[in-house]
Formats: sequence, C-alpha cells, structure tokens
Amino acid sequence: MDKLRIIPLGGLDLVGMNCTAFEYGEDILVVDCGVTFPTAEIPGVDLVIPDLTYLTDNADRVRGFVLTHAHEDHIGALPYIMHELNVPLYGTKLTLALVETRLAEHGILDTEMHQVSYGDTVELGVFQVEFIRVNHSIADSAALAVTSPAGIVVHTGDFKIDYSPVYGQTTDLPRFAELGRQGVLAMLCDSTNAVREGFTMSERSVGQRFDNIFADNREHRVIVATFASNADRLQQILNLAAKYRRKAAIDGRSMTSMVSTAEEQGYLTIPENTLIGMDQVNDYPPEKIVLLTTGSQGEPMSALARMAMDVHRNVHIMPGDVVIFSSRTIPGNERAITRIVNALTTKGARVVTEDVHVSGHACQEEIKLLYSLVKPKYCIPIHGEPRHLQAQKDILRQLDYPSKDIFLLSAGDVLTLDADSAEVTEEVQAGKVYVDGLGVGDVGSVVIKDRQSLAQNGIIVAVMAIDRNELILASPPELVTRGFVYIKESEDLLEETREVFESIVEEFLLEGSTNWSRLKVMVRDGLSDYIWHAIRRRPMILPIVVEV
Amino acid sequence: MDKLRIIPLGGLDLVGMNCTAFEYGEDILVVDCGVTFPTAEIPGVDLVIPDLTYLTDNADRVRGFVLTHAHEDHIGALPYIMHELNVPLYGTKLTLALVETRLAEHGILDTEMHQVSYGDTVELGVFQVEFIRVNHSIADSAALAVTSPAGIVVHTGDFKIDYSPVYGQTTDLPRFAELGRQGVLAMLCDSTNAVREGFTMSERSVGQRFDNIFADNREHRVIVATFASNADRLQQILNLAAKYRRKAAIDGRSMTSMVSTAEEQGYLTIPENTLIGMDQVNDYPPEKIVLLTTGSQGEPMSALARMAMDVHRNVHIMPGDVVIFSSRTIPGNERAITRIVNALTTKGARVVTEDVHVSGHACQEEIKLLYSLVKPKYCIPIHGEPRHLQAQKDILRQLDYPSKDIFLLSAGDVLTLDADSAEVTEEVQAGKVYVDGLGVGDVGSVVIKDRQSLAQNGIIVAVMAIDRNELILASPPELVTRGFVYIKESEDLLEETREVFESIVEEFLLEGSTNWSRLKVMVRDGLSDYIWHAIRRRPMILPIVVEV
Repeated sequence: MDKLRIIPLGGLDLVGMNCTAFEYGEDILVVDCGVTFPTAEIPGVDLVIPDLTYLTDNADRVRGFVLTHAHEDHIGALPYIMHELNVPLYGTKLTLALVETRLAEHGILDTEMHQVSYGDTVELGVFQVEFIRVNHSIADSAALAVTSPAGIVVHTGDFKIDYSPVYGQTTDLPRFAELGRQGVLAMLCDSTNAVREGFTMSERSVGQRFDNIFADNREHRVIVATFASNADRLQQILNLAAKYRRKAAIDGRSMTSMVSTAEEQGYLTIPENTLIGMDQVNDYPPEKIVLLTTGSQGEPMSALARMAMDVHRNVHIMPGDVVIFSSRTIPGNERAITRIVNALTTKGARVVTEDVHVSGHACQEEIKLLYSLVKPKYCIPIHGEPRHLQAQKDILRQLDYPSKDIFLLSAGDVLTLDADSAEVTEEVQAGKVYVDGLGVGDVGSVVIKDRQSLAQNGIIVAVMAIDRNELILASPPELVTRGFVYIKESEDLLEETREVFESIVEEFLLEGSTNWSRLKVMVRDGLSDYIWHAIRRRPMILPIVVEV
Repeated sequence: MDKLRIIPLGGLDLVGMNCTAFEYGEDILVVDCGVTFPTAEIPGVDLVIPDLTYLTDNADRVRGFVLTHAHEDHIGALPYIMHELNVPLYGTKLTLALVETRLAEHGILDTEMHQVSYGDTVELGVFQVEFIRVNHSIADSAALAVTSPAGIVVHTGDFKIDYSPVYGQTTDLPRFAELGRQGVLAMLCDSTNAVREGFTMSERSVGQRFDNIFADNREHRVIVATFASNADRLQQILNLAAKYRRKAAIDGRSMTSMVSTAEEQGYLTIPENTLIGMDQVNDYPPEKIVLLTTGSQGEPMSALARMAMDVHRNVHIMPGDVVIFSSRTIPGNERAITRIVNALTTKGARVVTEDVHVSGHACQEEIKLLYSLVKPKYCIPIHGEPRHLQAQKDILRQLDYPSKDIFLLSAGDVLTLDADSAEVTEEVQAGKVYVDGLGVGDVGSVVIKDRQSLAQNGIIVAVMAIDRNELILASPPELVTRGFVYIKESEDLLEETREVFESIVEEFLLEGSTNWSRLKVMVRDGLSDYIWHAIRRRPMILPIVVEV
C-alpha cells in the first residue's frame, strides 16, 4: 500500500502563503493557496506568492484546491496559478463568493467551483474531504478532515473556539471528538497564537467594549478602523449604530465591497435606516455618525490616513472625535500606525487601541483542547514562524507527545506517513515568488539587492563617450547622480569626483585598450574608493561606455 | 523686567533629539543635545540631529550645554555642534565621561567640561542650575532646577522613581517637594511612558526574574542581550553569574566599552573571578557561561545576530541555550528582532522576552506624584510624540490643571513666560538634519525622495549620444537598468522599450531642435508611460544626452 505524502509549499517559516499538498498514489489535492505581504526589506514588491512549481510540474495529477476560508493568506495566490492550473475549487459559500470576485478582477471567469456546507464530504481522486465548522475572524471558515487509504488527517485551517459567536455556531467540537474516537493519523494545526497563554476572547466581548465606548461618547463622532473581512465586527458596530441612533457610513474600497458581498450572501444584516453614503455624512451632526473605515494598518492611501492628513473629501477630524483601531498591529506596520495616531491626536481626536480587538486564532488552551479531542498520532504545527511552531511543540510536549511524533516542517519538505511511521523523505522545490505590478517572478534577489543598495546611498551614473577610431573621449565624461547628495551643497565633491573619473578614462585610453569591461571595473572601483574616503558612503556606481 | 523664553529645538513631535534652550535677556543655556535614529522611510541616513541654526546664529550668547544624562538621544548631537559652538559642558561624572569618549571619537578634545554632583548649583550667565538626583536606566541621571529672574523652572530630564535602585538612591523626592514649596514657575516633564498606567517596576525586579531563570537553567548556557548603557542591568547579571558560579563574557564593541568606562568610574563592580574574554568561552562547559551581548534590537551586524546566523567566531548556538532579550523593542525594529528570534529558535535555543526588562521612564502614577510635589504654575510635557504629550495633558487635566496652563509645544516654538503669563510668542528655525556617513545636512528631502523611488522600482538610464553637427544619433541609444527587472526574464520588454526610446529620439531630431531638456522630458514621459502600460511599474527614468 502507498503512503500519504504531505507537502507544505508555504505557511511555515513565515506567516502567510498557506498552501499544502496532500498526495497519495496518483492524486494530489491542495489545501489553500495564499499570499504573504512583503516586508520593508524587499522594496517595491506588492505581494509574495509561493513557488508552486511542484504543482505545475504535476498538473495532470492535481484534483483541486480545497479552501478553508477567504483570507488573502489562504486564497490570495489563486489568481496567479489558475491560468496554469485551472482545477476545480472547493469551499463554503462565502469563501467561494469572495474567491470568485478576486478571480474576476484578474479576468479569470471559467473556474469550476463546488460549494460545500459544513458536514459535507467531497471526493477528489482517492481523497474524501469533510468540511468542519470552526470559528475564525471571517465567516464560513472550515477545518478539513482528509481521508486517504493511509488514514485520516485533520487540517485545522485558521481557528479559534468562540462559545458565543456573533454569527453562526461554535467550532464543531463534537465532530472533532468523533474523529478522535475513530483514530486520526495526523493533525496540521494553526500555530499563530501558540505563543499566547490562555484562551482567545469571544468576538462578542468586543461588542460589549464598543457598547461602553458608544455610551461614554454620546456627544462625539465615532470612527472605527478595522479589517474589512470581519463581518461579525462590522455587524456589531452596525447594531450599536442602530441602538444609539447613529447613522453609519462605510469608507474605503475593500470595506464597501466586503459589506456588499457579506450582505448579499446573508452574513451581514444592515439595520434599517442606519446606512448612509459617505457623501451624506455631513448632513448629520457629528455625534450622530459612525464611520467604518479601512486603514487600521496605517496604509498611507487608506481612508483613515486621508482623514488624519486632512485630505479626505468628506471627513475633517475635529476635537472630540473618537477613533478606534479595532485590529491587531501586523508586525512591520508599527511606525505607519503610530504616524496616523499622532496625526489624529494632534487634531484633537481621542484614539482608542486597548481592548477593542480579539484575535481569530486559538491560544494555548484552545490548542490543547483540540489536540485532546482529536488525539492524532502525528502532530504538524503549521501557520507560523519558527517561534510559533516551536511554541506549539512546547505545548505538545506538555501533552506528553514524544518529540519524534512532532514535525516542524519547512516549505518543500515531503512528510511521508502511514499508521506505522512518519518521516521527511525528500524535498521538492518551494520558495517565494515576488509580484511587482503585473510582473510575477521577474523581480528576484539580484533586483532586490540593487533596490536596497539604491535606497541606501543612491546612484552615480558615469557616462563616457569614446571615439572608437581615435580611442579618445568624444566629449567630457559626465556624472549624473540620483539619491546621492544635494547637488547644490556638494558641487566641489562632484567636480573632484568628475576629475578623478576623467583621469581614469584618459589613462586607460592611452594604453590603447578597448576592453571596455575592464575600463568599467576601473571606473567603478576608482570612484567608489574616492567617494568612500571623501564622505564614507558607497553609492552604486554605474559606468556606461558609449562608442561613437 | 524681561521674561523667560523656553525654546525646544527637538524632543517634541518625535522620540529623541532632545534639546531645549532657556533664554533670558542676553543669556542662553541649552539643556541636552541629542540625536534620533532614522526610520525605514529615510533610507541610508545614519543619524538625525536637530537643526541648531538658532543656537549658532546666537553663538555669542550661549553660555553652555547642561546635560541630564548620557543617552544618545540627549548627548549624541554634541559632536556635530561643538566645532561651531565650543561652549562649556556641565554634567555629572558618568555623563561627562561618556560624552568625552564620544567627542574624542570625533576628534574634539578641547571642550571645557564642568563636573557637578547632585545638589550642586552652577551659574551660567543669569541662570543658576541645580542638579537633582533622579532614577533612570543609566546611572548619574539628573533633573534640573533652572532659576532665572522670572522664576524657577524644573526640567525632569528622563526619570522614573525606583524605591529600591540597584545603584545609588531614589529620585530626590524631598528636594522636588521643597522646590514645590518655594514655588515653581513651570515644569518640563518626561512623557515617554505617559500612555502607560500605574508605576514602572523597580530595576531590582528584573534581577529577581533573572535569578529564577538562572535557577531553572543550571544545565544551559545563558545569553543576555541588553542595552550597553544600563550598568545596573549588567551589574545584576554579573552578580548572578558569580552566585551561580558561571563565567561571564562581554561581547559587542559598545558593551565592552561601556563596561570598562562604568567600572573605571565606579558605577559597576565586577565580581572576582567572573569575567573572562570572549576567546575563552569555549574553555568552559556551556552551563558555566553567561554571555552579555548587544543586538537586542535585531541589529544585523551585532554579536547576537552573528550568533543567530551562525557566523560568530566563538559562539555557536546549541539546543537548550537560553537567550534573554532584556530590552524593550524600539518601534520599527520589530521585524528585525523577530528574524533573530526565529533564527535562534530554529537552532534549538529558548528565547525569553517576557518580564525581563523594566522601563527607565515614569508611568502615569509617577508623573502625577512629581507634579503633586512640584506644583508648577505651567506644565510643559516633553520627550514624546504627540500621543505621549497628549497623554500627559490628559493626566494633568485629571490633576485639575486648566488647559490654558498646559503647553503642548512643537520644536521651534518660543514659549515666553513669567509669573503673570505664558504664551507662544514666536517661532524660530527648527527641524531635522540628516547625517549620512561624513555628510551632515547634504542629504535632504529631495535626495530621500529619490532614494525611496529607487527602492520601489529601480532605475532605467536612457543614454543617447547625439552628433551635434548632423543632429543624428551617433550610436544606437542604450538602456541600462538597476533594481528594475531580471534582465534575462525581461529581454522582450527591454528591447521593445529600447525601440520606443529610439523612435522618440529620432522623431525629435528630425524636427531639427537642440532643446535637449525638452528631449529628456519626452524620453522620460514616453518610456514611463510605455512601461506602466506594459507591467504597471514606475521606475525612475534618467535620460542622459551626450553631445559628440
């Protein structure tokens, strides 16, 4: 009998790019296909997607993508792979609705989609995949029980356990318990909050906190920045708007689009006589208004940033305005958010960031609960950086799992397993692909290194026009700089550098050589050294020889 | 009678660059002269110093710099101003020792320095300045009572209240109370932690936590990353090394230099038979070693980063190593620190970040305490971003100060005050000056904008050699790119762009014009549009015309 192969292609070593292949015999199914967002160290890159070469190389064996939920880090890379791998997609109603919108934006309209409900089982080749209800910060999230001839593998997706969810029901603990009784070969489990003690608070607790804020600020406008995809959060704020007889307006493209999809699909109920357009907000006194907006991460072009910088079309921040950041700070965005907070504070707004958000991910006690129900033979922490995966391993050691049954994998590892054994048997191609504008994969480490270098010290272009017959300079050599120094303040330095440049070229030409590569190296090294000694900087030097 | 003028030249709107001028009649004294560190948005800049034009313009009236303590954000800009404004410096023993080292590194050796002790009063022109003992995260920190004919102004410097300090005594609360009884015109008060409730814990509490960690890890090596300047922290770790019979080694240039200065000056006592050199650490079993190192902010070249990346000369991380980040995360460094934490975790180290650091700054209850003792007529929150200053204002409102007596100033504001009134009467030049390599002020907003643009999408240099007599191209026009796209993957795009370029130039030359500026604009716009439509990017286009 064959063994099952589990191959994460992302979602490990970093947060995001969640994508895992399950392979048995000739069949491959793929769980999720997400993006991650670039850090400041890879400038100019819009998105990072997983390297899916392994899937495209085995395209004829891929039976479909099974999607746990519609967050970008789980579905965002689909538009970049569907034209090479147009296989069926399986997901819940809201998940597919949001995927469809996203694919349509990329002009992909012919994808086969299969809508499933919690409890449904779909067949993909040799696999049966059951969708199990879980709570998360977006509606219609699912865990998966993947049955193959080698046994049942549970994939939690992203989850938390919310005993009083705003929409729908609690994570289907009885079903996880039943699977545990049947016997589960392995579980891949969300590690995002494995470093956090205790239990994640219910989404409803945020509503109670918001209620207090509304009650305490009856004379002030309330502006809430939050993640567009959290319909439950939006629902609670809209309900409070109705309760406190305020009008609510939605700002920001992604927020507007999410609200309309969530309402269409029945995941959001807008109270009557509550919603108004952004162009109507000034028809009401400020204390009768709630604004729902994007920009909680400090995005410089967001609606909130435009309010903070006072360049918003409809909204001018005034003293007393209450601005709530109902979101976590995604690492790397701290300074951008602080800049917005400071700008709002300077205009007299009161900024609230404490206790106005709960996570969508399981903390330590929830992780313990799920493992205690499912009792898998092998444990595979997923969705996290090494420190998160290690934290889940620490939890598992407390649950008396032996180290040998806990697998901290890296992207590309092939974990081969059956009831008797589990081990990493090989490695397949995996990694990151940068998306910049319309280009996918045409920006790589060399380009990024150049960008980093340009950012640090700028560039000096050194142009020399050389008469190829006479082997003399056809015109004085020229230096052009960008991002290096203020030209006006540095005329002497630039003129001296130009003289050094000219003498290097003239000396070289006297030798009678036409080895322009060598000349370029000499110019680069000579100018670089000269500038380093003068002002301790290393701009990029780009020598260009024009033969005339 | 004249009024007193208080002119902050930094330390407001941002954290760092602390520098405030006090002016009465013909006399100016300056409190502190610090730097701030650049954010990722100003690439390639090493340091940011305050624009001190106001001081250099009035150099003959400046009587001296009075220094509260030796942190970089209070003294770091001195080397950049002393050659223009070589006035006497006043400070406590450790402060001057560290300033002297810093000035010597810049070749400034002839500065007049006056060492003072707590309780001493020095005269600078019309001013008397008393140094008052405060606790902070560096020894020998002082608050100042500045007496002028207009009244007494208290400047807290950076402070906290530590009832059980490791070295020295508690903040001199009785002296603040006495000043309060005499009557204080105004207080400038540290806002760094004004957003935090309660009371900052004693430095000694960190020692207790470390003791537990040492006790729990008798079989493992302990590595502590912390701020070099916190001698009390180092003292506690060295004491524990002795207690647990470990050898301690110091790594990192700034840590080594700080330990030797602090020991020389008597602020650090190294237990006998405890300190060893970094080259000796492998002569002992790992569980007998404590390493003190820099790199708590994720600095990529630090000793800790080199350990994490396994390129350290003496130290190779092994499973079980305990690595303690005994420091706060300076905003903006989150990702760099996370990278180090992940690398250490992957090598099997246990990383400890919880409860192993206390702040050096007063929280809300300490700020209330100090105001309650000093009872100034006017309140001037300093040392913070707008959100910190606003938080101190909120505290003052709770203490029933009327809004009109609380001044949230900006750098350059001139607050003119006496017993009868206080108001901002004018504004003087103030701002930021960038230091990059040896250049001070030669990198400004234009250069920074260029660097940002280069970082985002790279550069295309478009070179055209034109025969000035014939008005024809002397050679085929050439495109050279850096940081734009992988050349190999984008040959078609680059060739098409080159053809567009060539046709723009040829068309232009046919008109017979020699207006090269107009040609450059046409090339820039034409190529920029073409590339935007092709791949949705906007690299910098740098057209260069070579006349031959």
